[in-house]
Amino acid sequence: MVLQLALQLSMTQSPKKNIAILGSTGSIGKQALEIVKANPDRLQVEVLTAQNNADLLIEQAIAFEPNAVVVGEEKYKYVKEALTKHDIKVYTGADALCQVVQMETVDIVLAAIVGFAGLRSTLAAIEAGKPIALANKETLVVAGALVTSLAKEKGVNIYPVDSEHSAIFQCLAGEFNNKIEKIYLTASGGPFRGKDAKFLANVTKEDALKHPNWNMGAKITIDSATMMNKGLEIIEAGWLFNLKPVQVDVIIHPQSIIHSLVQFEDGSLKAQMGLPDMKLPIQYALFYPQRVPSTFKRFDFGSYPSLTFEKPDTNTFVSIRLAFEAMRKGGNMPCILNAANEVAVGCFLNDEIKFKEIPVVVEKCMEKVKYIAKPTLQDYMESDKEARLIAGSLAKGQMHN
Amino acid sequence: MVLQLALQLSMTQSPKKNIAILGSTGSIGKQALEIVKANPDRLQVEVLTAQNNADLLIEQAIAFEPNAVVVGEEKYKYVKEALTKHDIKVYTGADALCQVVQMETVDIVLAAIVGFAGLRSTLAAIEAGKPIALANKETLVVAGALVTSLAKEKGVNIYPVDSEHSAIFQCLAGEFNNKIEKIYLTASGGPFRGKDAKFLANVTKEDALKHPNWNMGAKITIDSATMMNKGLEIIEAGWLFNLKPVQVDVIIHPQSIIHSLVQFEDGSLKAQMGLPDMKLPIQYALFYPQRVPSTFKRFDFGSYPSLTFEKPDTNTFVSIRLAFEAMRKGGNMPCILNAANEVAVGCFLNDEIKFKEIPVVVEKCMEKVKYIAKPTLQDYMESDKEARLIAGSLAKGQMHN
Repeated sequence: MVLQLALQLSMTQSPKKNIAILGSTGSIGKQALEIVKANPDRLQVEVLTAQNNADLLIEQAIAFEPNAVVVGEEKYKYVKEALTKHDIKVYTGADALCQVVQMETVDIVLAAIVGFAGLRSTLAAIEAGKPIALANKETLVVAGALVTSLAKEKGVNIYPVDSEHSAIFQCLAGEFNNKIEKIYLTASGGPFRGKDAKFLANVTKEDALKHPNWNMGAKITIDSATMMNKGLEIIEAGWLFNLKPVQVDVIIHPQSIIHSLVQFEDGSLKAQMGLPDMKLPIQYALFYPQRVPSTFKRFDFGSYPSLTFEKPDTNTFVSIRLAFEAMRKGGNMPCILNAANEVAVGCFLNDEIKFKEIPVVVEKCMEKVKYIAKPTLQDYMESDKEARLIAGSLAKGQMHN
Repeated sequence: MVLQLALQLSMTQSPKKNIAILGSTGSIGKQALEIVKANPDRLQVEVLTAQNNADLLIEQAIAFEPNAVVVGEEKYKYVKEALTKHDIKVYTGADALCQVVQMETVDIVLAAIVGFAGLRSTLAAIEAGKPIALANKETLVVAGALVTSLAKEKGVNIYPVDSEHSAIFQCLAGEFNNKIEKIYLTASGGPFRGKDAKFLANVTKEDALKHPNWNMGAKITIDSATMMNKGLEIIEAGWLFNLKPVQVDVIIHPQSIIHSLVQFEDGSLKAQMGLPDMKLPIQYALFYPQRVPSTFKRFDFGSYPSLTFEKPDTNTFVSIRLAFEAMRKGGNMPCILNAANEVAVGCFLNDEIKFKEIPVVVEKCMEKVKYIAKPTLQDYMESDKEARLIAGSLAKGQMHN
């Protein structure tokens, strides 16, 4: 309805949203607070949470005046003392995390806790009917069946924050009744794009922490270097958009300008593009379906005369192969893959294993941990624990034998 | 609403649509009939029209069994004799063209008559409340104010068929409440991309008729070589999407894979992509908002490892500058530009003027024909006539002085 609708741009102002930011001192959390700061008439912080970074949490709480904060037990007393005089409630513990997201005053939950730790609070928020802006991909990787069926039951929308999934989601606006033929997840290829296995054998932590395009946390930066990040995104996309493994493709796009693409049944492709800046997908998830004006730097073709594409080298970057394998097997296999990867990346960051050993640990774990086709939440928790134990022992002991 | 809506893929079958194809023997018309042939349960031909190509029109009519055909006066008797025994009504003349599109049995009109000649029948269809799949860009270039205000009054939707405008329209699905910051119309650059004015001085008709990517009619292929095609599209986009000249940008993209882009107020860009194939935008316009499965060849990144972009050289390809000038001036100026261009291209195809003289004729006409700020339909007709006369005399006489 080109003419009517294009002319009828409704400038309706949405009511102010109260947001709970889980993981506010992380990379996504900090950028979300920049968006809140830029949109004081649209967003109000209701909850902030952090594990360890007490000083930043205190600073954020004083600046944004949430109703409540939740912090890890070790820092609880310290934060409580600092915030009591500011009339901000301070809690600690996993139960508290689940309770604050369920508060009636919370309108939307930004789930930005890294790793498996984010699952319970996200489930609690869905249980309470809160829309989720999902920055924690492990939630869907680990327990996609559980999370999506609960969301369906509760009528809860999950808005992706990952730039690739946000791109797909943006391309699907107005297309929900049209079948997806396939999607392309784009990948920068990370710092080791084009390198072979021999090269990967000798990379250092410093090498792996340098990402060419995106400013992200340490765990995700290493995942980007191994390409396990893309592996996790493949599985996440399957759950978010109800796709089979054959409907998901990965394409290396070093400039990170096209953030992903959807191909429909008529053969048409839609892509979402822009300069790499996580603030855009965060903002889109918080305000969907409205696009709010921003001062984010604009893309200019003059600076990108060529956008290039290549197939991923899955012989060198085996994580992509492992992820597809986990997706095909289903059940607790993605949970095992994720837990093993978290441990392996942690060991790498602690200089306990080499870069090339990260996927080896993951693959061995996928063989050793008991496979469960239809896991319960309890099963997931146990598979996660078992995978971590095995990955830890593989990493600490056997790798250098 | 990712989860709910992605799962809820409704496979509702739309009722069969009766289509009137104005200009069925042209490039767009023929491709539209291929779509009808591929979708016998979704489309039924109600009307076919052609000016001169009587034999093809007869062949099409026998194959698709429309209720009525309209043909140019010279071929009327010939076609009538051929089709009477097939129980297909045959008419001729501009009035008949306007009447057949208004028939109650017509559900959608594909306006694919080339040039100014398409205006009256399109207006008649809008007047009768028929949705328009618009392949005739001159309709909006010449009389955009008139056409869009009538469409608004009648509640008629205009679905663009031009690949660039279809791309914009596809990117706007689900975004009609979000403001467009700007659009990029992509251009292949035509056969003379990268050439300078000196080169253009010596190009032949054969050179100009070779388009690198798209299979189109002769007039539009020459317009592509001069880049006036992009100029007309700039003006058309302004009317379709309610844009100011500063909101429209042109970017040269020789591979013709990205068919155009929209940039929203949050800085996000959406692009529609695919192999160059006019059948996709035609089909999208006919079935919007539904995407119908197709066997069109799929895009493959393996065949396009690099997509490139460059700014247009508006010193060499002055048509783009002339089009922006006409858009800024408004009134009857785009009508003058279009009429002068049609005549100049015709003269070039008849070997009466040189390639480089086409925009010279257009620019001189824009200076000489009387400017009218708020033209009526009558004014448009007169401006068109005056511009054609002046362009003709410029082309035939003065150019070689």
